[in-house]
Amino acid sequence: MQSEAQPAAQSATASTEQWSNPLRDPSDLRLPRIAGPCSLVIFGVTGDLSKKKLLPAIYDLANRGLLPAGFGLIGFGRRDWSDEQFGNFVKENMQAHCRTPFKETTWSHLVKGLRFVQGNFDDEQAFTNLSKTVSELDRGRGTMGNHAFYMSVPPKAFPEVSRQLAKSGLSHSTKGAWRRVIIEKPFGHDAKSAKELDRVISSVFDPESVFRIDHYLGKETVQNILALRFANMMFEPVWNANYVDHVQITMAEDIGIGGRAGYYDGIGAARDVIQNHLLQLMALTAMEEPVSFSAADLTAEKTKVLSAVRVPKDLAKYTARGQYADGWQGSEKVVGYLNEKGIDKASNTETYAALRLDVDTRRWAGVPFYLRTGKRLGKRVTEIALEFKRAPHLPFETTATRELGANAVVIRIQPDEGVTLRFGAKVPGTAMEVRDVSMDFSYGRSFTEASPEAYERLILDVLLGDPPLFPTTEEVNLSWNILDPIEEYWSTLGQPQPYASGTWGPAQSDEMLERDGNHWRLP
Amino acid sequence: MQSEAQPAAQSATASTEQWSNPLRDPSDLRLPRIAGPCSLVIFGVTGDLSKKKLLPAIYDLANRGLLPAGFGLIGFGRRDWSDEQFGNFVKENMQAHCRTPFKETTWSHLVKGLRFVQGNFDDEQAFTNLSKTVSELDRGRGTMGNHAFYMSVPPKAFPEVSRQLAKSGLSHSTKGAWRRVIIEKPFGHDAKSAKELDRVISSVFDPESVFRIDHYLGKETVQNILALRFANMMFEPVWNANYVDHVQITMAEDIGIGGRAGYYDGIGAARDVIQNHLLQLMALTAMEEPVSFSAADLTAEKTKVLSAVRVPKDLAKYTARGQYADGWQGSEKVVGYLNEKGIDKASNTETYAALRLDVDTRRWAGVPFYLRTGKRLGKRVTEIALEFKRAPHLPFETTATRELGANAVVIRIQPDEGVTLRFGAKVPGTAMEVRDVSMDFSYGRSFTEASPEAYERLILDVLLGDPPLFPTTEEVNLSWNILDPIEEYWSTLGQPQPYASGTWGPAQSDEMLERDGNHWRLP
Repeated sequence: MQSEAQPAAQSATASTEQWSNPLRDPSDLRLPRIAGPCSLVIFGVTGDLSKKKLLPAIYDLANRGLLPAGFGLIGFGRRDWSDEQFGNFVKENMQAHCRTPFKETTWSHLVKGLRFVQGNFDDEQAFTNLSKTVSELDRGRGTMGNHAFYMSVPPKAFPEVSRQLAKSGLSHSTKGAWRRVIIEKPFGHDAKSAKELDRVISSVFDPESVFRIDHYLGKETVQNILALRFANMMFEPVWNANYVDHVQITMAEDIGIGGRAGYYDGIGAARDVIQNHLLQLMALTAMEEPVSFSAADLTAEKTKVLSAVRVPKDLAKYTARGQYADGWQGSEKVVGYLNEKGIDKASNTETYAALRLDVDTRRWAGVPFYLRTGKRLGKRVTEIALEFKRAPHLPFETTATRELGANAVVIRIQPDEGVTLRFGAKVPGTAMEVRDVSMDFSYGRSFTEASPEAYERLILDVLLGDPPLFPTTEEVNLSWNILDPIEEYWSTLGQPQPYASGTWGPAQSDEMLERDGNHWRLP
Repeated sequence: MQSEAQPAAQSATASTEQWSNPLRDPSDLRLPRIAGPCSLVIFGVTGDLSKKKLLPAIYDLANRGLLPAGFGLIGFGRRDWSDEQFGNFVKENMQAHCRTPFKETTWSHLVKGLRFVQGNFDDEQAFTNLSKTVSELDRGRGTMGNHAFYMSVPPKAFPEVSRQLAKSGLSHSTKGAWRRVIIEKPFGHDAKSAKELDRVISSVFDPESVFRIDHYLGKETVQNILALRFANMMFEPVWNANYVDHVQITMAEDIGIGGRAGYYDGIGAARDVIQNHLLQLMALTAMEEPVSFSAADLTAEKTKVLSAVRVPKDLAKYTARGQYADGWQGSEKVVGYLNEKGIDKASNTETYAALRLDVDTRRWAGVPFYLRTGKRLGKRVTEIALEFKRAPHLPFETTATRELGANAVVIRIQPDEGVTLRFGAKVPGTAMEVRDVSMDFSYGRSFTEASPEAYERLILDVLLGDPPLFPTTEEVNLSWNILDPIEEYWSTLGQPQPYASGTWGPAQSDEMLERDGNHWRLP
C-alpha cells in the first residue's frame, strides 16, 4: 500500500479519466450521480455491519464508478493493524460480499486511499492520529477536507466519539469543505432518550450534517412507492379514504433473535421495527405529493403524516403483543424466546407487535393503518397493502359475486420485490361470475439493472450530502411520540401472548382486526 | 337414428336425471344456466359457420349439461339426406371442432333429437315438412313448442325464409311457448337497408324474438370489460376524461380476404368490422354503469353511447382507408387485394379503415376514440387500450422522467386474452429514474376453467331468451348512422391508400393520430 504523499491534482486527474465520464450532465438525474472528493471514516470497522454491508457497498460504489477519484477510507478500531493488514481485511470482506464482479483494477484504486487508525474511543491520542491521517489523505489523495464519520458502534458510544471528534477538531469543517456524521438506529429507546442523543450529537455537528440511517429507506422498492404514486396517473386518484378501506403494513421475519439477545431483550419488536421502518413506510404511503423530491420537501410531507397520526385511545383493543414459543420453522424445530440463550425466563419483551393507527387528515379520515412486525412468523416478507373498499356492485346479482373480494394494491418491499394488483375478473363460463385474480409486476423480471444494495444508495447520498432518504430528528421524535404511550401501556401488562414459532402471531392480533371487520392478509 | 315417437314425459325424465343437477339453485348466476326444452332449426346447416362453429358449440353445450333433455336439432338444406346421413355429417363436424372431449354418451342423447328437412327456401312444401318435423319433436322429444331458427344464410335470403316461416305458421308461437330467430351480420349495408331488413323480419317476428349475433360480444374478454369496470373499485374512478387521454380500439387480422371476395368486395373493412364489432366494443368501454346486467338495462347504456357519438366534421383528417398491396406475411409472400382472385383490378374497397370518434358526454368530453381494423396487418390482435394522461410529474426532475410514458389499461380481447397495465416504476439504481413497465393478467394462466366459445354462450342465451349480449335494432341503426356519412364521403374518393401486406396500415392512418399528438400502439 502506498502512503507517500503525491500532488493531489495529478492523482485526481489521472483517476478521473478512468473513473468518471466527462460527458455526464450532472443535472441529469437519470445518470448516476458521482460523489465529490472525500474520505469516509468508519468507527467499528471490524463489526458485522461493516464487514457484510458497508465495505461491500463501498466496493460496489467504486466499481460502478460512483466514488470520486479522490476517495479515502479510514478504519478506526482497537486491533493493532498496519494499513496493509487493514487492506487485507477490507479486500477479504469486499470480495466475500460485493454484488458487482470483483475487479483488481477497482481494488487497486481503492487500496491507495485505505488507512487504519488504531485506538479506543477514550484515547485522545488515537483521535489526534485520526486527524493527522485525514489531513494526510487531503494532501495525498485529494480528499479536499471533506470527511464523513460512520458510527457503526453501539449508541452508548456516540457521546464519547462525538466528544473526541469535537476535541480533536475533526468535526469542524474548514472553509468550503464538509464534515458529516452517520448514525445507525436505535435513535434512543423513547422520546426522552432520543432527544438526549440528539442534544449530544447536535452539540458537535450541525443538524444538516447528521445522517440517520434507516436502511429500509434505501431499498429500491421503498423508493418505488414514490415512483408508483407520483409518476403515474392512475393510482393517486384512488389513493384516499374515498376508495381505500384500510392499509396493512407488514414486516415479518422467519428468524428468531439469533445472537442479538443482549440488544433485543428489553427493546422488543415495536421499538426495533415499528418506530423506524414501519412508521417511515407508513409516512411514504400516506403522505401528500411533495413539491419536489428534495430532502426538505419530502421531509415536510413525511413529518405532516407523523404529526397527524392518532394513537387509538383504547390501547387494549388496538394494540397486540406476542412472544414466540417453541414451534416449527419449516422442517426445523425451534425454541421459544424464553428458551433462547441469554434471555431471562421471565422476560416481558415482545417479539411481535401490531397496532392500529389513524391518520387525521382529509385524505385518510376513517382509514385504519394496521402495522405489524414479528420474529419467527410464517415467512420473511415486508409489504404494504392498500385494501380497497368493495365496489357497490349494483349491476351484479348478489350470488354472482359471492367470491368477490376487494381490490388491493400490494407493494412488495422484500423479498420478490414488486407490485401486485388484485382485482375481479369474469370467470370463463356461460354465467356472469366474477372472481379475484391478480396481476404482478416483478422487479427482478422487469429490469436487467441489478438493484443496488440499500447501503450503497445511502452511503452515496451521505457523500453527496443528499439526505431525502434519511429521517430527521423531528421525524424520529414524532415516531417516539406515537410509540411512547403504547410502550407505557404495555409496561403495565404481564407476559406478551405466546404464539407458536412459524405461525402468524398471537390471537390477540387477529382479534384486533376482526373487531373492525377486517383480517390480516396471508402474505 | 330413432325416429319413432316416445312419450315425452318419460324421455324427458330419464334424461333430466342424467343431464341436469336437481341441486342447482336457478337464481344462482354462478352456476350454469340450463336451457328449457326446445328445438333449434339451422338454415344453411351445411355451410362453413355451421360446420365449424354452430354444430360444435351445440355439442359442447350438450356436453357441459347446459342443453335440456328435451332438445331437438333440425337441419334444413338442399341435400337429399336422410336423418341418418345428416347425423353422420353432424357427428363428423362436432368431432372435428368440439372443444370439450367427444363422448359417445353425449352424442347418443343428441342424436335422438336430430332431424333433416330437405328443400329450397322457395319450396313451400319443404316448410310444411319442417313444420311437421318440429311438431313431431314436440311430441316425441318434449321440445314443448319452443323453436329457434338460425339463419346461417346470406342476408338476401332473410326475406324469403321469413316469409315462408310466416306462411307455414312456424313463426307463430303457441300459448306459453316461444319462437325465436337468430340472424348473423351483416345487418344491412347502410341505415336504409338495415331498416328495410328490420321491417321484413319484424313483420314476422316480435322485436324481442329477434337475436342479432355479433359473435364478438360472446367472447369472455368482451364480457370481462363489464366485470373489470363494474366489479372493481379502482378502475371506474379513473375511467373518464379527467384521467384518460384517448382510447384505441384495434381489430387487426393477419389474413387477407381468403375465399370471401364475393362477400367482401364492395363492403370493405368499415362495414365488415367497425359498424358492428368495434362500435359495440366502444359502447361497452364508454357506457355508464347499467342499473343491472339485464338486456334492457345494458342496451339502454350502450344506446346512450351510440347516440352520443359525434363523427368529426373534417372526414379527410379524421378517417383513413387503405388497401393491402403485395408484401410479406411472416415468411410468406402474399398478393395484394387487387390481385386476389375474384377482385376487380379497379376495386375501391378498403381493407383497412380507421377513424376518430368523439363521445359527447360529460364522462368523455374531449377524449378521442380511435378505431381501426384491417386485413394483412402485422399480426392478429384485438384490443381496447385506454391511454391515460401523463401524471403532472412535479416532484420529478424533467430529465429523470424523460422515458416515462403514460399509464395504459389494455383489455386484450384476442389472442392471449387478458388485461395489461402499463405504469412507471423506479429503475434500479442510485438515481430516481422512472421507466415504463407492465403487469399482466392472463385468462389462460389465471383460470383452470376453459373459456366457452363465443357461439356457445350466444346460442345458449338465445335458447334461454336472455339477450343482453345481442345488439338491438336501435343499436344497429345508430351504428349505421355513424358510418353512413363516412362511407358516403369515401365513395367520393378514388382508390384507398395502399399499404404493404404485413405492415400496420396506410401512412394516412398514422398521420391522423399524429395530428392529435398521438400514435397508434404497436400491439
